[in-house]
Amino acid sequence: MDRLTLHFALENLNAAYAECLDDGDLERWPDFFTEDCLYQIIPRENYELHLPLALMRCESRGMLKDRVAAVRQTSVYAPRTMRHLISNIHVTDDANGIIRARANYAVLETPLDEPTRVFNTGCYFDGLVLIDGALKFRERLCVFDSILIPGSLIYPI
Amino acid sequence: MDRLTLHFALENLNAAYAECLDDGDLERWPDFFTEDCLYQIIPRENYELHLPLALMRCESRGMLKDRVAAVRQTSVYAPRTMRHLISNIHVTDDANGIIRARANYAVLETPLDEPTRVFNTGCYFDGLVLIDGALKFRERLCVFDSILIPGSLIYPI
Amino acid sequence: MDRLTLHFALENLNAAYAECLDDGDLERWPDFFTEDCLYQIIPRENYELHLPLALMRCESRGMLKDRVAAVRQTSVYAPRTMRHLISNIHVTDDANGIIRARANYAVLETPLDEPTRVFNTGCYFDGLVLIDGALKFRERLCVFDSILIPGSLIYPI
Repeated sequence: MDRLTLHFALENLNAAYAECLDDGDLERWPDFFTEDCLYQIIPRENYELHLPLALMRCESRGMLKDRVAAVRQTSVYAPRTMRHLISNIHVTDDANGIIRARANYAVLETPLDEPTRVFNTGCYFDGLVLIDGALKFRERLCVFDSILIPGSLIYPI
Repeated sequence: MDRLTLHFALENLNAAYAECLDDGDLERWPDFFTEDCLYQIIPRENYELHLPLALMRCESRGMLKDRVAAVRQTSVYAPRTMRHLISNIHVTDDANGIIRARANYAVLETPLDEPTRVFNTGCYFDGLVLIDGALKFRERLCVFDSILIPGSLIYPI
Repeated sequence: MDRLTLHFALENLNAAYAECLDDGDLERWPDFFTEDCLYQIIPRENYELHLPLALMRCESRGMLKDRVAAVRQTSVYAPRTMRHLISNIHVTDDANGIIRARANYAVLETPLDEPTRVFNTGCYFDGLVLIDGALKFRERLCVFDSILIPGSLIYPI
């Protein structure tokens, strides 16, 4: 793919990713990843200090599915709407079949009967591969800015 | 139009749309729509349950103009600045002369002498047509996340 | 450059700009500008009334570097993370070697041990030139919406 086409594919991938999560269509979420993969939600501080502790860590599509099942079975979590704004998407490297990309994200949440507020902001660090012409996440690290999460973070970001 | 060109046209259309509203240039806003059109602002809940109740509903460019006139004549509304962030723009369908697209939006508002805050977030569901080489909204549904609107929503989104 | 390639270059430039500031990599920030340049942070009201007063005003790359040095020597400023969302990027004019562009931005800040909040929103008004095939800011005006800045604004936007 030339650089323009790749950028366009990345924009579309992130748009579809956001749509999946914002529509609450979690069962489709693992399909954005390769079979072996790494999905992590890490506080910025740990990321910068190379500390391994993550808020969420999944190392295969199977673990992502388990995660979705866990979300569905959590009954104490008050219903809310999530809204992803993903911007500043750009490729940082493209070599040896792995595309490296970054993007900034903000997730705004709207609990039932409450006003919309900022839930979480941060940066995606992605490693992507082309499988049958479609981009898949081999790695998505969600490095978030706050060490405080309003409410428990149970949904993927 | 090929897919890349269409995506680019959509990005530009949404940028011009945001610029128009954020600059307070409301009189130009109806020009983004076709003569017969559907513009609606709907709470997410109603949209999902197929309930018809909308916060704002205009079915022609004439009604959009009436809406703008109403905003201009509303004197009890405190001045404020709106700022649109439209992201995750993508085409979902392109057939029979109608282009279907979605985007996430966040509108941040800044009342005079107050800090900036989240006003409204949601999703645009668009139906677009090409008229003389330019994209126009035949339909723009603003499905918003909160059932609480801080202050009265009188501006278009 | 054709319009699509220019749009893509602008997207990449803004992504790199945001990455530089959000990573706290301020020393690289002046490199986004031409040697003679104009960088300003102006409240919207002053901008609209053509009042010259700006919160920050730098007229050369040297002054940008001074600004960075000042930030680094400010010890009373509590550490925090900034997160830029730049959207609705579009070219408004391209003539006589100067590209004019606009974009909306939101900066969200996360002070240490505090939740993420909206720091500043506004509009970039840019004048860009191509130097050795790379876009540089000859002018970046950050016109912000609020006349209240939470905390002192010392970082570039």
